[in-house]
Amino acid sequence: MVMRMSTLFLRTLREDPVDADVVSHTLLVRAGYIRRAAPGIYSWLPLGYQVLRNIEAIIREEMDAIGAQEVHFPALLPREPYEASNRWAEYGDSVFRVKDRKQADYLLGPTHEEMFTLLVKDLYSSYKDLPLSLYQIQTKYRDEQRPRAGLLRGREFVMKDSYSFDVSDEAFLRSYNAHREAYIKIFDRLGLEYEIVAAMSGAMGGSASEEFLATAKNGEDTYVRSPGGYAANVEAVVTPAPDPVPYDDAPAAHVEDTPDTPTIETLVDFLNERFPRDDRPWTAADTLKNVLVMVRQPDGTREPLAVGVPGDREVDEKRLQAQLEPATLETFTDDDFAAYPALTRGYVGPGVLGEKNVSGIRYLVDPRVVAGTRWVTGADQHGHHVVDLVCGRDFTPDGTIEAADVREGDPAPDGSGPLELARGIEMGHIFQLGRKYAEALGLQVLDENGKLVTVTMGSYGVGVSRAVAAIVENSHDENGIIWPREVAPADVHIVATGKDASVFTAADELARELEAAGVSVLYDDRESVSPGVKFNDSELIGVPTIIVVGRALAGGNVEVKDRRSGERTEVAVSDAVGYIRSLVRRS
Amino acid sequence: MVMRMSTLFLRTLREDPVDADVVSHTLLVRAGYIRRAAPGIYSWLPLGYQVLRNIEAIIREEMDAIGAQEVHFPALLPREPYEASNRWAEYGDSVFRVKDRKQADYLLGPTHEEMFTLLVKDLYSSYKDLPLSLYQIQTKYRDEQRPRAGLLRGREFVMKDSYSFDVSDEAFLRSYNAHREAYIKIFDRLGLEYEIVAAMSGAMGGSASEEFLATAKNGEDTYVRSPGGYAANVEAVVTPAPDPVPYDDAPAAHVEDTPDTPTIETLVDFLNERFPRDDRPWTAADTLKNVLVMVRQPDGTREPLAVGVPGDREVDEKRLQAQLEPATLETFTDDDFAAYPALTRGYVGPGVLGEKNVSGIRYLVDPRVVAGTRWVTGADQHGHHVVDLVCGRDFTPDGTIEAADVREGDPAPDGSGPLELARGIEMGHIFQLGRKYAEALGLQVLDENGKLVTVTMGSYGVGVSRAVAAIVENSHDENGIIWPREVAPADVHIVATGKDASVFTAADELARELEAAGVSVLYDDRESVSPGVKFNDSELIGVPTIIVVGRALAGGNVEVKDRRSGERTEVAVSDAVGYIRSLVRRS
Repeated sequence: MVMRMSTLFLRTLREDPVDADVVSHTLLVRAGYIRRAAPGIYSWLPLGYQVLRNIEAIIREEMDAIGAQEVHFPALLPREPYEASNRWAEYGDSVFRVKDRKQADYLLGPTHEEMFTLLVKDLYSSYKDLPLSLYQIQTKYRDEQRPRAGLLRGREFVMKDSYSFDVSDEAFLRSYNAHREAYIKIFDRLGLEYEIVAAMSGAMGGSASEEFLATAKNGEDTYVRSPGGYAANVEAVVTPAPDPVPYDDAPAAHVEDTPDTPTIETLVDFLNERFPRDDRPWTAADTLKNVLVMVRQPDGTREPLAVGVPGDREVDEKRLQAQLEPATLETFTDDDFAAYPALTRGYVGPGVLGEKNVSGIRYLVDPRVVAGTRWVTGADQHGHHVVDLVCGRDFTPDGTIEAADVREGDPAPDGSGPLELARGIEMGHIFQLGRKYAEALGLQVLDENGKLVTVTMGSYGVGVSRAVAAIVENSHDENGIIWPREVAPADVHIVATGKDASVFTAADELARELEAAGVSVLYDDRESVSPGVKFNDSELIGVPTIIVVGRALAGGNVEVKDRRSGERTEVAVSDAVGYIRSLVRRS
Repeated sequence: MVMRMSTLFLRTLREDPVDADVVSHTLLVRAGYIRRAAPGIYSWLPLGYQVLRNIEAIIREEMDAIGAQEVHFPALLPREPYEASNRWAEYGDSVFRVKDRKQADYLLGPTHEEMFTLLVKDLYSSYKDLPLSLYQIQTKYRDEQRPRAGLLRGREFVMKDSYSFDVSDEAFLRSYNAHREAYIKIFDRLGLEYEIVAAMSGAMGGSASEEFLATAKNGEDTYVRSPGGYAANVEAVVTPAPDPVPYDDAPAAHVEDTPDTPTIETLVDFLNERFPRDDRPWTAADTLKNVLVMVRQPDGTREPLAVGVPGDREVDEKRLQAQLEPATLETFTDDDFAAYPALTRGYVGPGVLGEKNVSGIRYLVDPRVVAGTRWVTGADQHGHHVVDLVCGRDFTPDGTIEAADVREGDPAPDGSGPLELARGIEMGHIFQLGRKYAEALGLQVLDENGKLVTVTMGSYGVGVSRAVAAIVENSHDENGIIWPREVAPADVHIVATGKDASVFTAADELARELEAAGVSVLYDDRESVSPGVKFNDSELIGVPTIIVVGRALAGGNVEVKDRRSGERTEVAVSDAVGYIRSLVRRS
């Protein structure tokens, strides 16, 4: 059916919405695809819902092609299965919880590992039933602390989630790889530029995972890549630990009075002035910075953690957080300092931290802090630092942690060269779950020898509503959206210009003929709107092919414009349907 | 893609599920279409989800055909718009309420009048923009007190809801009738037997409404129809009030000692024995029964109500409830009796009730209790009744109420003959909302004269997941489901029987060829399953055409069986695709 702009439920906006912080949000609201209903919660207008359904159709085709079967679970889920997997507690504030009229506990499903596991357990019992991959395209919920960026981080959103069930790890790898290949096809068809990177498993548990990140300057995720092909989400980057350093000749540690050195910078200046070194000047990399945080477990318990990183690096909260999941980070407050009197604020050092019986605080350091490295760091007394403090001789951390920021030029952990930093939007995530959920919920099948074995699972997600925004982030210009053909709300946008009735007659007929030829049409048939406004709207809305029926009609032509390149071609009205049809088919 | 039962995520069950109380629930679970996830909350297995999507496709086509435009709203909705319409309070316990991490109030949308009204207000401002009809197919929530009957009364369910917006009541009627016609097409295509009946508007507000009820012996809704074409939900039946009766000659009311008459029956026997009448015996219809209930308003206030009905009728709680919505009914407890000492339990009469200053209780009577009618009823003292109590002379009720049950043979209110009672399942409901929501939320547009007018709205619902069950209630036999062709999970079910490899080769090829010809195929290719089990499964699953590839193959034939009639036809393998194709097209 031709979508006529005279009746289409659409109003484009000239002004940017005040609450929009990314270009996809701005353009999708201005072009009339979505409207905000509440923070992080959006309504889909006709054009937007068409795009969403086009994306769903692509995903369905590719999931069906690998033999995954579509099912549909509720969004309102009972507490019990999530209790069994411990996620009822682990999710903390990040899920919406609901009590029914009988005070029974429910949650709005953020992901469905438990439910799928239980359903397969209900139906299947033998290795002969496997492999099995199930998927759904469904509305999901997450009570984000800071919903932002429009559809990129919403609280109600559409996801495709799928789950694979296999009798062995080898069989699982085939399911995992099938999904990986299907995802490559999906994201290719969505017209996204993306990168596949190693990732953390986070709240999902399991052993390994990979993310599909759409490259985007203002993406929320930072990732790294090396010339040799290493690619990882920055949270998953492993710091190569240097070899231990011999320290037999190292001088004894000595405490120095270091007045007026509140920052690392002032401390380094002080050292270079008072204790100049012959071979090289002191730098921030010679100092060891100890950062205190409180770690809150899902069960509500709170315990302190000290993190030691070289002074030339910052603690990257997202990296630190990723190591500690499902626990969350909180600030180390004045009250916390008061509760640990061994700590001297601003001068906290391994002298206290490295002795757990003194401070009572767990002390984890950056992997670069290996045995034999020498540091200038807090002396646990006001206005004093300790110099030549040797790791492994003068203090022993409780372990290492990936908390320091990753920098452009850092070496890739696999030796494949210096890292480059880039940003992206998480579009897909594939998880090797192992047996975590199958064990928690008792999903076992009989193997060939009649022995019960626990099933190996994978879970796989695509952000469907997020994809709408990611595509816009990837594909727009200063005038508006440029949809890749497979997801566009229509194949062509006919713009009828002028006051002449013959223009509208010709445009009407062309629209009808194109639809009959299987080309979907958005048709600007508004009579009281100026050509300029119509052209602006067509650029903003972003249908890939724009057909102008107007001035050229006198010569028996219409103008066909490519939204992306801006290229214009005059085509005879009589040839237009054939020309457009081949254009739509080709791309 | 051919669905192969060797890999299809499906297990049919021999036993009825213990919690199933209606045949559709039993069959849908046994045939592997749905599984229960929580009370009133179901998961859709592959075949079930296919049926659901087929129904959605039919609805989409018919809604698009009347120019309605598809949008999609969130299910998690902010409190404010529902506050403005007063439904935040009115819904009481029947909606799921959610607080986010910032303690902001949300609800899980049971219906979306408010959100659509606000969206149209956001985009539109002129009479030129109207008429407009918008729809969505969406997951909805209602915290039913007693979720039951599987998909027929669930707590999470799929609905198509649409909303029309018009500048005048005349224009509105065109939108309403277009929806009515579309619904007729939808329910015809779903293969449902149904009736269109007058209905109450309930929590929706507005002036008038009609229901589409699928006829079903164990439907939850009772409706009436007359030979002359009157049809109404029993809740909406209006009792014709008889003319007042002259009572100048009526004897004075007299109180009688009526020992041992705890029931109407014993009272009538007592009257016939002690006060026999010449013209006709006393019957229950001569007595007036006064029933006490407590009415709880959405704001929590609770007040008593006395309902007087002729003693030969019961108070129909659903009818009474429908008149009082959004208030709910509660039992009149011992404590309540204690709070109203003027009441004598078992002998409550209009002597007390008819005098509001005495009892403090509102007293509403059946419309048949008109001025001049004479009654035997409670005398407000233990063991006593009053005889010849005349309405309008001896007592004056506060008004009338439709609370008495409706009986087979009652006269239709429009004089179209005696009513017949039947039962049905509410499949669709179309509401004339008037300006209730537009006024509450300020939806106005400029009319032709530049004057602001409030928009007239309609709302229209189809129970999509409920339709799956209603179709099964309408269409099954003792062996299983019989799907109408347009909603069936597949066009044909190929059953390969026997051990011979040639059978499977032939069946494989037939399945492939049918799919290539646009016929969707469910194919029982299981090798280790007996023909009996396969036949039983095919009857249970209910695909309309079953093709048996087996014994007849020796003669070059397959057997084509019609699931509904049981009729079997042998068709040459070489003709099978053409034959089946015409069969599928025809119906």
